[in-house]
Amino acid sequence: MAARGLIVGSLLLVSTLMIDNCSSQYQPTWESIDSRPLPDWFDQAKFGIFIHWGVFSVPSFGSEWYWQKQKRQPYVDFMQRNYPPDFKYQDFASQLTAEFFDAKEWTDIFAASGAKYIVLTTKHHEGFTLWGSKNSWNWNAVDVGPKRDLVGEIASALRAHSDLRLGLYHSLFEWFNPLFEQDAANLFTTNYFPTSKTLPELYDIVMKYKPEVLWSDGDGDAPDKYWNSTGFLAWLYNDSTVESWIFTCTVVTNDRWGYGCICTHGGYYTCADRYQPGHLLKHKWENCMTIDTKSWGYRRNAPLKDYLTIEQLVASLVETVSCGGNLLMNIGPTHDGRIAPIFEERLRQMGQWLKVNGEAIYNTTAWKVQNDSATSDIWYTYGPQKNTIYAILLQWPNNGSVILHHPVVTVGKTEVVLLGHGSVKWAPVKPSGLQVLLPQLSFSQMPCQWAWTLKLTGAT
Amino acid sequence: MAARGLIVGSLLLVSTLMIDNCSSQYQPTWESIDSRPLPDWFDQAKFGIFIHWGVFSVPSFGSEWYWQKQKRQPYVDFMQRNYPPDFKYQDFASQLTAEFFDAKEWTDIFAASGAKYIVLTTKHHEGFTLWGSKNSWNWNAVDVGPKRDLVGEIASALRAHSDLRLGLYHSLFEWFNPLFEQDAANLFTTNYFPTSKTLPELYDIVMKYKPEVLWSDGDGDAPDKYWNSTGFLAWLYNDSTVESWIFTCTVVTNDRWGYGCICTHGGYYTCADRYQPGHLLKHKWENCMTIDTKSWGYRRNAPLKDYLTIEQLVASLVETVSCGGNLLMNIGPTHDGRIAPIFEERLRQMGQWLKVNGEAIYNTTAWKVQNDSATSDIWYTYGPQKNTIYAILLQWPNNGSVILHHPVVTVGKTEVVLLGHGSVKWAPVKPSGLQVLLPQLSFSQMPCQWAWTLKLTGAT
Amino acid sequence: MAARGLIVGSLLLVSTLMIDNCSSQYQPTWESIDSRPLPDWFDQAKFGIFIHWGVFSVPSFGSEWYWQKQKRQPYVDFMQRNYPPDFKYQDFASQLTAEFFDAKEWTDIFAASGAKYIVLTTKHHEGFTLWGSKNSWNWNAVDVGPKRDLVGEIASALRAHSDLRLGLYHSLFEWFNPLFEQDAANLFTTNYFPTSKTLPELYDIVMKYKPEVLWSDGDGDAPDKYWNSTGFLAWLYNDSTVESWIFTCTVVTNDRWGYGCICTHGGYYTCADRYQPGHLLKHKWENCMTIDTKSWGYRRNAPLKDYLTIEQLVASLVETVSCGGNLLMNIGPTHDGRIAPIFEERLRQMGQWLKVNGEAIYNTTAWKVQNDSATSDIWYTYGPQKNTIYAILLQWPNNGSVILHHPVVTVGKTEVVLLGHGSVKWAPVKPSGLQVLLPQLSFSQMPCQWAWTLKLTGAT
Amino acid sequence: MAARGLIVGSLLLVSTLMIDNCSSQYQPTWESIDSRPLPDWFDQAKFGIFIHWGVFSVPSFGSEWYWQKQKRQPYVDFMQRNYPPDFKYQDFASQLTAEFFDAKEWTDIFAASGAKYIVLTTKHHEGFTLWGSKNSWNWNAVDVGPKRDLVGEIASALRAHSDLRLGLYHSLFEWFNPLFEQDAANLFTTNYFPTSKTLPELYDIVMKYKPEVLWSDGDGDAPDKYWNSTGFLAWLYNDSTVESWIFTCTVVTNDRWGYGCICTHGGYYTCADRYQPGHLLKHKWENCMTIDTKSWGYRRNAPLKDYLTIEQLVASLVETVSCGGNLLMNIGPTHDGRIAPIFEERLRQMGQWLKVNGEAIYNTTAWKVQNDSATSDIWYTYGPQKNTIYAILLQWPNNGSVILHHPVVTVGKTEVVLLGHGSVKWAPVKPSGLQVLLPQLSFSQMPCQWAWTLKLTGAT
Repeated sequence: MAARGLIVGSLLLVSTLMIDNCSSQYQPTWESIDSRPLPDWFDQAKFGIFIHWGVFSVPSFGSEWYWQKQKRQPYVDFMQRNYPPDFKYQDFASQLTAEFFDAKEWTDIFAASGAKYIVLTTKHHEGFTLWGSKNSWNWNAVDVGPKRDLVGEIASALRAHSDLRLGLYHSLFEWFNPLFEQDAANLFTTNYFPTSKTLPELYDIVMKYKPEVLWSDGDGDAPDKYWNSTGFLAWLYNDSTVESWIFTCTVVTNDRWGYGCICTHGGYYTCADRYQPGHLLKHKWENCMTIDTKSWGYRRNAPLKDYLTIEQLVASLVETVSCGGNLLMNIGPTHDGRIAPIFEERLRQMGQWLKVNGEAIYNTTAWKVQNDSATSDIWYTYGPQKNTIYAILLQWPNNGSVILHHPVVTVGKTEVVLLGHGSVKWAPVKPSGLQVLLPQLSFSQMPCQWAWTLKLTGAT
Repeated sequence: MAARGLIVGSLLLVSTLMIDNCSSQYQPTWESIDSRPLPDWFDQAKFGIFIHWGVFSVPSFGSEWYWQKQKRQPYVDFMQRNYPPDFKYQDFASQLTAEFFDAKEWTDIFAASGAKYIVLTTKHHEGFTLWGSKNSWNWNAVDVGPKRDLVGEIASALRAHSDLRLGLYHSLFEWFNPLFEQDAANLFTTNYFPTSKTLPELYDIVMKYKPEVLWSDGDGDAPDKYWNSTGFLAWLYNDSTVESWIFTCTVVTNDRWGYGCICTHGGYYTCADRYQPGHLLKHKWENCMTIDTKSWGYRRNAPLKDYLTIEQLVASLVETVSCGGNLLMNIGPTHDGRIAPIFEERLRQMGQWLKVNGEAIYNTTAWKVQNDSATSDIWYTYGPQKNTIYAILLQWPNNGSVILHHPVVTVGKTEVVLLGHGSVKWAPVKPSGLQVLLPQLSFSQMPCQWAWTLKLTGAT
Repeated sequence: MAARGLIVGSLLLVSTLMIDNCSSQYQPTWESIDSRPLPDWFDQAKFGIFIHWGVFSVPSFGSEWYWQKQKRQPYVDFMQRNYPPDFKYQDFASQLTAEFFDAKEWTDIFAASGAKYIVLTTKHHEGFTLWGSKNSWNWNAVDVGPKRDLVGEIASALRAHSDLRLGLYHSLFEWFNPLFEQDAANLFTTNYFPTSKTLPELYDIVMKYKPEVLWSDGDGDAPDKYWNSTGFLAWLYNDSTVESWIFTCTVVTNDRWGYGCICTHGGYYTCADRYQPGHLLKHKWENCMTIDTKSWGYRRNAPLKDYLTIEQLVASLVETVSCGGNLLMNIGPTHDGRIAPIFEERLRQMGQWLKVNGEAIYNTTAWKVQNDSATSDIWYTYGPQKNTIYAILLQWPNNGSVILHHPVVTVGKTEVVLLGHGSVKWAPVKPSGLQVLLPQLSFSQMPCQWAWTLKLTGAT
Repeated sequence: MAARGLIVGSLLLVSTLMIDNCSSQYQPTWESIDSRPLPDWFDQAKFGIFIHWGVFSVPSFGSEWYWQKQKRQPYVDFMQRNYPPDFKYQDFASQLTAEFFDAKEWTDIFAASGAKYIVLTTKHHEGFTLWGSKNSWNWNAVDVGPKRDLVGEIASALRAHSDLRLGLYHSLFEWFNPLFEQDAANLFTTNYFPTSKTLPELYDIVMKYKPEVLWSDGDGDAPDKYWNSTGFLAWLYNDSTVESWIFTCTVVTNDRWGYGCICTHGGYYTCADRYQPGHLLKHKWENCMTIDTKSWGYRRNAPLKDYLTIEQLVASLVETVSCGGNLLMNIGPTHDGRIAPIFEERLRQMGQWLKVNGEAIYNTTAWKVQNDSATSDIWYTYGPQKNTIYAILLQWPNNGSVILHHPVVTVGKTEVVLLGHGSVKWAPVKPSGLQVLLPQLSFSQMPCQWAWTLKLTGAT
């Protein structure tokens, strides 16, 4: 993050530093692409917000896969009950009105949530682009629906928050694009679609919006050669510097760049939606998941029980970070551009929790163990700068004390602090570890309400 | 509520009992109308849910007074930015689609909230009726918009819940009904409007839906004589028995029956919106208030901070009940028939709290004092059956104990119980009252999270 | 028509004349009402234009009876193919946009057609009023759809044409008005509907727009007593003078004022739609008919063959006038306020014909015979001022001469003129009548193209 | 036309004949392309119908250039008065409903008009394709609006009429296609647009619909090299035979294939819209013109006076054919798929006239002179098969005779016939020519009403 801070002071100085940092030239091969080290900021950020917004936000029924599933129940019934007989998915586009969309309101909520990066669907599998793509004429948010550059407005608003980075989701394939269908029918021996749609649009959003995360998705069962993924990534890592060298050093991508790439090639790994391995991975990874357990896009008819509680969300974040991952938590805005209050509440609650416990999350690394082997619901993280161990308790112990089995402690040197409260007493236990005596706190004295962090210094 | 339970067993028996209970014949004078005792169930119920639903739920912008305020900012801008130049409020009606409306889902949420009665706007000042009124042709929910009898669907669903009673809100006047405007221009010396619209519709909803609360509103600055309010109420209290005698005994009305009636005549008093006197009133009253602090109708663009927290809602209920009132807590459904998750969450949280503390609310009466004079945030209620005093603490004391200054206690006889937990220790204090030692409970052992009840027996 | 001309010059004088002309006071009985002489202007006018415009102009499919027939084929199919499943007739109202409606353009066309009066549907059986009726709130053209007073705009524009009079069509009953349905279910022993809808609206349009024709329709099988028709007509003929005495003297009504009245009571007789008796009637009558043979309201899908040709229309006018009737020729404007060019063409062609032959139509009376008994396609009219006989030939004789069997001619005195051309030769024939030698005219020398008039003076 | 007739009888035979007729292989140069002889059928056909249909048919205001002119008056006012503030042209597409479109009804009218070919706008400058183009995803009539292949339906219906040929209009450029704008900004040094849109779509409509006229338009000021016009035409004339050799022999194109090509290169010449040179051209040409004088697309608010009369239309046809051209007479269908009755009337009137006079039009060639030098309003055509001269009189002479100055006649050999009537008398005049005595015909005996043909045999 230092580089960003320096920009104002001395562009020249930063420039020199950066060239040192990311001066490699990459070849369009996985071997070369995969050799690029992940920019540091990403691992340090830990928590991002995913935004699924598109034409699917208009019916906001079922899920963002509405179009693809529309010939099945309950979509068929929904369509028949509410629309004229020849109404098609495309007709929803004009109702993506976004009249309440205010990028500043959104980013204020994002900032309050403690997230460090935001990933927006610039184009989902439906092919509708949220910016005015030249290659998607009359099927984009500037020509129809909002009549606004939604990507641009969010990008601008994020830049006003020094602590929030822009990420852009982009689907390689499109379910029903006839050029893709043609290529698929040709078993991907032709590439009408990537050359006239996918690649021009990828270059366009990179050059226009300078994202620091490029979240690729949707290979359509086509190999990366069809998509020319390594060619594009080599350009992204090398040549896009021409226009904005800082960005080139900080851009991060994921692993969804063609059939067989996932969990194998590219930048960080996503492996699967809602990926939560439960153990440490060697490669940096991200757990993208949803607050509404049943959909990425907004669902009007989602009952409260389909939304994860803040307790569940905090637990997900803690487990993910302990195992070396980042959490990318999804919300679905409405067709008229709002973040529903239930989402806002979850995001602000997360921010409240991180205000107290953020030290145990941001800039940490995985510790030697991830969770306590004998006491349940305790996850560890490690602060490398100050050699600090964080034990995060998902439950407050009823008996007033908790045993941490893995820290090696030294009486007189080890100190334990309850974040948001202060020092607490502890005693070593056999054969290893320590028992922490939690303070007797009244309800209103609790530092937070959903998970509590014990910070250990002078321990290993 | 007993009468209701008996219906199944022995209609004849109930009939006899009822005739004893409500055999009076009322005259169309306030003196006579005001002499009618309020049916017991209402005071015992304490907690109801208010529903504001109508054409205003379509723009769902500003408030349910959209139409009346549409020539002011920000309505003018909103209309200009989003609609064709000659778009009128009436054009919203066709978009009151209600496609997700499911009365059973709604009543399940209501039942879970602990509410005992539901009051639905059958017709707000806009004049649009949520049932198929003959006197409101083509300006009602059966002819346009939902094409459904919304009142009827809710009434039927409520009947399936033995513990939820139906209340119907009805506005006497209509902002822009030309017949009302004509009468108003004639200084209410003519009565085209009440005879052709208000009164036929009032009779219609009573006979058709048999509400147990008739929540009148909106006198339009016209006297009750213009509305023939006493004539209607005499009919309601006497003759509507012909069709359903049980209902006639249980029906409750409020005090908004004409200019000058409010807080003076009719059934229970409402006095003002969000009425919270803070002290005991002689006449039964009701505090109608809103979860969204700025609107009764749904507002799409309400940010989270405009919604009361569950802590604030519980505090409102407690204070209201302590002062002898009922709380009527409002939600605004959406144009497509949903109760937004943020409302559902608040309602279910209220239900969780009432599950533990309902004994201190339902069927209670006001105690000799309403709140503690020296310890803040403590409100009292009284259980007459078992001579029980309830002290509800809105804050959990940090020091582990609390002094209640008003109960007269007797060592060896007085017992104190924390609802949801069990007996707790106490000691008398001078000159009066007692100090209660609260138990040391871990976070998860707390009986609830938002207010706590001490139940005192053997005290006065 | 003199009275009108005098208005500018001397109101006082006219006033006196008028009081002489129409000073009777009528009783609310048919005997009295029927005794009123028909104002002269109506019989002199001969030709009017009927306009059917309403919500039915939106689907403009089938006919103006769309709503009433919508559960039959082909309406069911049309609705299912083109609209959402719960779309109702009422939903069409918002699409009655009238954005191209310009009353001046219309009246210019009407004036060019040679018509002398215009009859507009202020309210058809659908109940939707084309003016802002107080008694039809939110089901009128000011509240929904055009958001304009269509009746008022046409009335004003007509007043700018000194030669065009305003007529207002009004349907007594409404197919689906629930108050009418209620009265009908009560076998018309109640009269909720006429008192709250029909009669207030009738008084309203008379006082507001001062029509000179009040074209009543749609008794709904209810007797005139139910409608209080004689009461209303007595008011119309007597008291409406208070506001505009001239109008009271010139107003004309028809015979559709209750079950059994048609062709029997009221003003002039209409007897049936498209009434063409083919012989002289004792009572003044009117043939209301349509250019589109299958509908009064606009039909988008009417093929050319459903429109009467100008030859057919001229023939209808000629026959009607010869038999003592007036022709009321109907057009159906579009939902967006246009008179389709095919209608405009027919109207202007009629005007061209009348420019040449109007003398044989306007201000004429029926002659001793109506059509020639031996030569087909010849109709007679009579000009009383100058003792003139008009013989209108629907066909131009191929052999260059035509025999008129009924005029009694005198050589040396009788003169024959071909209107638009000049004198023509003739010779008496035995036992009566004359043979007229038509001139040898080239195609472009013909005075008109669709029917030709021989004017006889000095004959009987 | 012979080839077509033979198809049924003997495919093999025709095949051989055809190869003889059109066996050349063309090079992608204008020299080669221009050397191709025009298939005979086109010159023989004389009369076609042009159809402008597209998204512009929805506003149907101003003209089909609505989009391009929308920032000027009166478009700005129209848009502001009738649509929401951010309404864009693209939003009209969903209202191109075509619910009344029935290709069979259309082609029946076309057949009745006497036209021999129909040219439909498959894509106007707006870029919206009336067929489901892969290269115009979501901006075509299958994806939005009608949800139907309009081109396909018309093509199929035409094939059922052996006497009507299919022509397809196609605009090379698109006003607002961002890829075209990009190429234009690059001064046409790039060709993103033709390669990804124009050319794939041209190939597509040729192969899919096999038109016999390909009516190119709209070069966007770009040279034919940019469009690769000669490459495409060489393919069209050579290789498209692979799929349908007959078609390759009969396909006709015009001259709008790039900047500078018009009136110079390609197939027949169009030179300008409504081109009427008034004299004979060396190269085959076509006069494309409109019945609505002010627009090619339907205009809802076109008054009757903007439509040409049948007299004017017949005169245009006659003059055009006399000078060696074909007349392509345009109609604009409505957004809901109808041919307005005023257009139907003109087309059927034209058909009536051609039924009598078609012999003087079809299969004729220009004569030695085109119109009479001394008698006005007389145009000549020539029937080569029987050495027949046709003199078409736009006016019927008032004096009963007409002098034709150019035919060289021989008493005893020359015969003159009035088409639709029979032989007429004539006499030679000095120094050359003849005087024709027209018969004395009554109005109903006239062979037709708008122009009359004298057929001369035995003259030169």
